Amino acid sequence: MRRSALFLPTLKENPTEAQIISHRLLLRSGMIRQTSAGIYCWLPMGFKVLKKIEQIVREEQDKAGCQELLMPTIQSAELWKESGRYNDYGKEMLRFKDRHEREILYGPTNEELMTDIFRQAVKSYRDLPKLLYHIQWKFRDEVRPRFGLMRGREFLMKDSYSFDLDYDSAKKAYNKMFVAYLRTFARLGLKAIPMQAATGPIGGDLSHEFIILADTGESAVYCDQKLLDKNPLQDSVHYESDLQEIVDSWTSHYAATDEKHDPVRCPIPTSQLVSARGIEVGHIFYFGTKYSEAMKASITTQEGQNIYVHMGSYGIGVSRLVAAIIEASHDDTGIIWPESVAPYSLGLINAVQSDAHVTKITGQIYDQLRQQNVEVLYDDRDERAGTKFSDMDLIGVPWQIIVGTKGIKNGTVEVKNRKTGQREMISQESIYAKFNNIKVGLRC
Amino acid sequence: MRRSALFLPTLKENPTEAQIISHRLLLRSGMIRQTSAGIYCWLPMGFKVLKKIEQIVREEQDKAGCQELLMPTIQSAELWKESGRYNDYGKEMLRFKDRHEREILYGPTNEELMTDIFRQAVKSYRDLPKLLYHIQWKFRDEVRPRFGLMRGREFLMKDSYSFDLDYDSAKKAYNKMFVAYLRTFARLGLKAIPMQAATGPIGGDLSHEFIILADTGESAVYCDQKLLDKNPLQDSVHYESDLQEIVDSWTSHYAATDEKHDPVRCPIPTSQLVSARGIEVGHIFYFGTKYSEAMKASITTQEGQNIYVHMGSYGIGVSRLVAAIIEASHDDTGIIWPESVAPYSLGLINAVQSDAHVTKITGQIYDQLRQQNVEVLYDDRDERAGTKFSDMDLIGVPWQIIVGTKGIKNGTVEVKNRKTGQREMISQESIYAKFNNIKVGLRC
Repeated sequence: MRRSALFLPTLKENPTEAQIISHRLLLRSGMIRQTSAGIYCWLPMGFKVLKKIEQIVREEQDKAGCQELLMPTIQSAELWKESGRYNDYGKEMLRFKDRHEREILYGPTNEELMTDIFRQAVKSYRDLPKLLYHIQWKFRDEVRPRFGLMRGREFLMKDSYSFDLDYDSAKKAYNKMFVAYLRTFARLGLKAIPMQAATGPIGGDLSHEFIILADTGESAVYCDQKLLDKNPLQDSVHYESDLQEIVDSWTSHYAATDEKHDPVRCPIPTSQLVSARGIEVGHIFYFGTKYSEAMKASITTQEGQNIYVHMGSYGIGVSRLVAAIIEASHDDTGIIWPESVAPYSLGLINAVQSDAHVTKITGQIYDQLRQQNVEVLYDDRDERAGTKFSDMDLIGVPWQIIVGTKGIKNGTVEVKNRKTGQREMISQESIYAKFNNIKVGLRC
Repeated sequence: MRRSALFLPTLKENPTEAQIISHRLLLRSGMIRQTSAGIYCWLPMGFKVLKKIEQIVREEQDKAGCQELLMPTIQSAELWKESGRYNDYGKEMLRFKDRHEREILYGPTNEELMTDIFRQAVKSYRDLPKLLYHIQWKFRDEVRPRFGLMRGREFLMKDSYSFDLDYDSAKKAYNKMFVAYLRTFARLGLKAIPMQAATGPIGGDLSHEFIILADTGESAVYCDQKLLDKNPLQDSVHYESDLQEIVDSWTSHYAATDEKHDPVRCPIPTSQLVSARGIEVGHIFYFGTKYSEAMKASITTQEGQNIYVHMGSYGIGVSRLVAAIIEASHDDTGIIWPESVAPYSLGLINAVQSDAHVTKITGQIYDQLRQQNVEVLYDDRDERAGTKFSDMDLIGVPWQIIVGTKGIKNGTVEVKNRKTGQREMISQESIYAKFNNIKVGLRC
């Protein structure tokens, strides 16, 4: 894409309303714009990042045998009255009436609707187990929306739901999601640590929050240094197995959020305990028959009995991840995108726009890279080189190629790695080989 | 995908609430479920079709140089008061208040919000022209939602917006969308005919509806037989040119919706005039400075003047297309999906589930086809062959492979084309070559 044609309104100044770094950088780099309090428009470059994250989340859900469907944003209040949550949910739920005075709401989550769809369709043990998910916009009417995407009102979430005959089968579903989440966050370039979370009245130990560490995190977290040293889970996984070994390899080490952490009872020595700030990016939860009983979602077992299905729900904050990745990966000059979610793999900078020869060569490089399906952002604007350098650092694409008069005389260009800052002069020809295998994000 | 694992609750009986064929078939084939009046959940197989259509729409917008972004579903009422449409829009607009009593609404369309985003970002002629689009859920509170996806309340729409310095440039944008729409509908297997539509108070001739012909269409349409005989536009297009020749080759022939048709003034002989029923699947519209004036979206020209930008908007009903394609392509036994949007390319039927040898061979065929990345739906359920045959016809995947005892003895399987009904026995080995190049829809 040529920068001159791209709809990318970057800002020169830090927007005063933005208190945290991800919010500042998202606004400054022209990725998002606020349209109402806590509600954002995704401009083309931010949208690309959002879609790449969404696609990685999707692929890992699919691999785990989770089937995608799509529930609507607007739900009937009736179902929430059935589950008993209509009154409990409070003012965060956006409630209103349609033209016929029927009570409806903008879904803040989907346990009720999913249970309703399930109970209409599935009656027999033969159709279990089932793992279903969707990726949809949700709305929570936060009293003070702030921190940009981190606590917005309209947000994109992946939520999965498991349906099983009994606890043992439900635990397998839980483990699948546990492992799928580890893989998802690893692919996003994040070190996410599963931490035991409160389960509420249901009890049990099947509730984990996935937390990434960042200095600007919303809450204090504590964990064993060994968890930070663990390699991310990127090998292929046999989802047919019970996966207990992988889950245990994480849960056997101490990790707790502020509310669960007890310095006195903490089983590891202080020297081994990491105290940091964390951002929640996922939450998995087994809740047994809570909704199936309330909403009469029963099935017939092989023995002819009627039982309530065991359920769990599993969420990932997709739009929140855009901000969380920035909180975990930036420097003083801007965003540093992991390659897997970068809006472009490579930024091409024409450092001397007024030099016809440099412009010609840069154009050739651009054309060739596009032919190789490299996602390249070509800064062809009539701007000073300094502006282009700082803009490209701000945007945070993983690689930069800088074409200047002097280099071109020697047939070379400068290649800069955004993350390490490392620069090297390489011959123009060797660019194509170097970036031939650069990961091309799926355009969708 | 194995049918036994797929969440696909087909119905044996025709649902009584469904008046038109697409609604009946979508419910019976387990593609969608109604969750409230005019609001639907997309079950996994319906969701696949929806995403494939969305992706084709997206690719053709991208080729035309239109940049994707994403506006939120919830909008502030303020913008609509600025444009003057807040009172005009009537009860179809779903209006409500947030917890702080601010007036908000669920966007039924996005001219106001897009104009607002544009005017904040673009001030100079240098940044024009711009073509922007998004694909997002919208809501119109129909007084009597009916006909399933054809007139639902929550629906998925692609809407594009063009911003230009003057009429001539705006016309080029209009032509781009005109041509992109022709290409889009052709790829969807539809014969869509652009028909001149009413432009309202603005006047001019830059408004076309894209109509597909179907016996169950919502309105009467009239057009020159020559338009039906035209080849669909599938060649590559040079979007840099003005495209006028392609546009003229369509608009030079008579085509009118009921409200525009005048039998007396109709310039072609009755023998050449086709009278049929039509379904609107797209609408393109140039509206000049209507919104830019009302909302003060001005830019500075090269000469230093302030002028209002010329705008157009261009819609495609993405979720409506799922129904429209079925209306245009079905028979007495079920849906006939065009290959480009079929949920699976191929249905594999084990006709004798009780026969261990047949089951083993069918399983081998399934594994091999999956390795070839063919999207195959394998009916491995413990059901009668007749049930599987009628289910597969209902679902409407383009090809069926039927594996039975007799054929397997001779090393052959039956291949059936869903559309033509043609059947042939071919050797088991030749399946793999035959379906090696079958189009694999993008999984996203």
